[in-house]
Amino acid sequence: MAAASKTNPSQPRHSRDVTQWDLETDVAIVGFGGAGGCAAIEAADAGSEVRIFELASASGGSTALSSAEIYMGGGGGTRVQRASGFEDSTEDMFQFMMACAGPQADEAKIRNYCERSVEHFEWLVDIGVPFKDSFLDERAIMCLTDDGLLFTGNEKAYPFSTLAKPCPRGHNLYVEGDNGGPLFMKIVTENVDKRDNIHVHYESRALTLIVDDSDEVVGLVVRENQRELNVRARGGVILCAGGFVMNREMVAKHAPKLTQGTEPIGNPGDTGSGIQMGMAVGGAAINMHEGFISLPFYPPASMTYGIAVNDKGQRFINEDVYHGRLGDFVLRQPSERIYLILSVEHYADYEQVSYLGAPVAGTGETVAELEQELGLRGGVLAHTLATYNEDCAAGEDTLFHKAPQWLQALEPPLVALDLTPGRGAFVPHFTLGGLDTLPTGEVVDEQRRPIPGLYAAGRTACGVVRRAEGYASGMSVGDATFTGRLAGQQAARRGG
Amino acid sequence: MAAASKTNPSQPRHSRDVTQWDLETDVAIVGFGGAGGCAAIEAADAGSEVRIFELASASGGSTALSSAEIYMGGGGGTRVQRASGFEDSTEDMFQFMMACAGPQADEAKIRNYCERSVEHFEWLVDIGVPFKDSFLDERAIMCLTDDGLLFTGNEKAYPFSTLAKPCPRGHNLYVEGDNGGPLFMKIVTENVDKRDNIHVHYESRALTLIVDDSDEVVGLVVRENQRELNVRARGGVILCAGGFVMNREMVAKHAPKLTQGTEPIGNPGDTGSGIQMGMAVGGAAINMHEGFISLPFYPPASMTYGIAVNDKGQRFINEDVYHGRLGDFVLRQPSERIYLILSVEHYADYEQVSYLGAPVAGTGETVAELEQELGLRGGVLAHTLATYNEDCAAGEDTLFHKAPQWLQALEPPLVALDLTPGRGAFVPHFTLGGLDTLPTGEVVDEQRRPIPGLYAAGRTACGVVRRAEGYASGMSVGDATFTGRLAGQQAARRGG
Repeated sequence: MAAASKTNPSQPRHSRDVTQWDLETDVAIVGFGGAGGCAAIEAADAGSEVRIFELASASGGSTALSSAEIYMGGGGGTRVQRASGFEDSTEDMFQFMMACAGPQADEAKIRNYCERSVEHFEWLVDIGVPFKDSFLDERAIMCLTDDGLLFTGNEKAYPFSTLAKPCPRGHNLYVEGDNGGPLFMKIVTENVDKRDNIHVHYESRALTLIVDDSDEVVGLVVRENQRELNVRARGGVILCAGGFVMNREMVAKHAPKLTQGTEPIGNPGDTGSGIQMGMAVGGAAINMHEGFISLPFYPPASMTYGIAVNDKGQRFINEDVYHGRLGDFVLRQPSERIYLILSVEHYADYEQVSYLGAPVAGTGETVAELEQELGLRGGVLAHTLATYNEDCAAGEDTLFHKAPQWLQALEPPLVALDLTPGRGAFVPHFTLGGLDTLPTGEVVDEQRRPIPGLYAAGRTACGVVRRAEGYASGMSVGDATFTGRLAGQQAARRGG
Repeated sequence: MAAASKTNPSQPRHSRDVTQWDLETDVAIVGFGGAGGCAAIEAADAGSEVRIFELASASGGSTALSSAEIYMGGGGGTRVQRASGFEDSTEDMFQFMMACAGPQADEAKIRNYCERSVEHFEWLVDIGVPFKDSFLDERAIMCLTDDGLLFTGNEKAYPFSTLAKPCPRGHNLYVEGDNGGPLFMKIVTENVDKRDNIHVHYESRALTLIVDDSDEVVGLVVRENQRELNVRARGGVILCAGGFVMNREMVAKHAPKLTQGTEPIGNPGDTGSGIQMGMAVGGAAINMHEGFISLPFYPPASMTYGIAVNDKGQRFINEDVYHGRLGDFVLRQPSERIYLILSVEHYADYEQVSYLGAPVAGTGETVAELEQELGLRGGVLAHTLATYNEDCAAGEDTLFHKAPQWLQALEPPLVALDLTPGRGAFVPHFTLGGLDTLPTGEVVDEQRRPIPGLYAAGRTACGVVRRAEGYASGMSVGDATFTGRLAGQQAARRGG
């Protein structure tokens, strides 16, 4: 049995084995993405000395790689929502987010997130994050204009639309193009840099936590310039080290369904080391099997006029859902192929705009011809289309409840795109499991007792968002920045 | 922050805090069900002194509550298989079990299980477990005759039938009625009792593990007669304490899909304490979200002539699958209701034999009438039935590949049973997640490094069976008894 290395994230160091503290601080933060940056600002503003240990040579994390949409609302609406004519209610936001998380929902966490969301918006504005008071009324995955607000999830889609009044909550930074992430992290980094009580260590790898005899987390071990340093953290350690999508072994073990994705979304540091460090001191990891997995079949929005069918020729979803919900439903279909059936007119839009990359699986001047090209049993797709077209004429999708605005009869000639994961389409994915935490960021063990001195935020924690089928863009950066702030406040308080 | 109790399973005791060893043994085993009993026999036969700590006042565990079918085969066939005319191959068994576990498969574990399965059969015979050399050719959930062999899974159902040559592997004890479990545990207990080097402690609750400064497991704390005892285990501790289906909080947190089940299957001790003890010393828990969940829609076998449909009126599965696979597919359907459509003739069988308990959702002298009673959109179920009946006439289920023997046109009058979980049907379930182990039973950490001195078997470990959709009766007791034996051998070897 090989002796375990003492600097492996899955094995904490004991303080009795620490002969010297190389660094001391009030609050130590692992990772300088959106969560870590916001945690540092809050802890510093509460008077603490803060050190951030970032593996890379610059700040950014996965937040900088994202569009940095931020999911916020409730409380009568953020400034942008109100200016755009939306009076959002906390209860609607809460009901919607509870439905998104389903049986995995952490009610206290979602409640807290919704109740303090407008305040979070204002804090972001205070640190200099710009939002334009305008609404983009488009079915988009990301905002390519500088508009401040858009629908980014399933709010308007069945069944969510029946559970809570739909309201757009995706807040987009005031910048043209898909440039929200870099701008957001630039602003956060400037805020960090101008605070004298925050010290950033770049190219510093957090190796493992340090615990004392009463199992409190009292610091961590980092490696800088090939030297191991024992860091004492009086208030505690905040793990903001991202998820584990880049650790393919961990993905295969814990979230096997994500192995059907083609493109892991995240930064190279998303190796699960933060989650492992937390688990090693007794932190419970939850929801580890879940992930976001998507088939980004829009834009163009006109793809929504199509219907998704399985290899029996059956529909299985309302196609006006968010792309992550479609992705999840595709994986659940007992089917070897999934197709998106389009009119030639909408296929022309697809050719111009889409980045889905799904190949054409078949075409048909008639439905029978298309069935034959796809190798389907004759008659089922024909019946599916006949039923759908009848519903389109009546203005109500009786089977799957796609909203009336997307109902347009599908008449031949038709084109079928192959949406099957693994056959050409772009299938982005990332993990949604992590350390279980209290709403305020304390990492808890299997019995939900906090581990003194340990906090987690962002993707290292399991946050408000728990399932691809209920995902909305902006929930990750929203959760990371919000929970980072709370963890920063808590650790600062503890550090005295 | 409340100080953690030192006798909580999620917090190990340190050997430096042990002032006195109250008991010493070579091998300590937690739990006296099928896994624990077999572990004890093997460790004792290897010359070790063994102590079993069992919470209840008698042996049994969940094995005694089960039918104790045991999934075995390969290697040309067990004696019972060969006598019944089945020449099973290890490769067929391996391919089948790999498909059952899908992306979660532990290939090394399945390989080992299959390669040594005939040997395991012989070991069971050697300790006195009786199997009759006869085959029951029935679609049953459990064997109510004394026959020794039956099909207990998806072997003959699509797609499994295309991946490996179907062979029955469910071995049933030579006893009338559903009495295999008690008989099996009686035999195991007699074997334990006659070995002088096994000491059984009943009404003894394992509280937590004891680790030394190098993180080796060196013993455990038990409570007997309201007294805590420190038990030194020179060879190690084997956790055979069952799963966590009776810990509803843990189920909600880790396996939320199981909350849709009605009946937890297991014994009251299945509280996850064994898994938690292992996690507390760094053991990785895997596959925690998965469970067996079923709609036992047969017997009577004639239910297989029916078709299962969702609330759109669409079929979604070949109805000749094992009931657990149907259960899992039901949960994955985006549907508020699931129905089993039967002819009145087969409904009469249902009334006589079934213990499914599903209420009648609707009846119809015509398909249109049934659609109306069920509140379905008109025409879809009619088309589903027309397609199905056409396929029955041609002898091939073109859409879902139900085997030809179960194809019989469904003509009105028709009856629809409501299979929807939560609406009356019996939905048994249990957990399939647990501690990650090597094929030989060593508990491993997140990096798959063994934790010295710690073993797990049965439902406390994550074994060869990983998904309801690929479950077969007999895989649990098969895995528990087999892995129990291997863990017993390993711990004995280590104990010297």
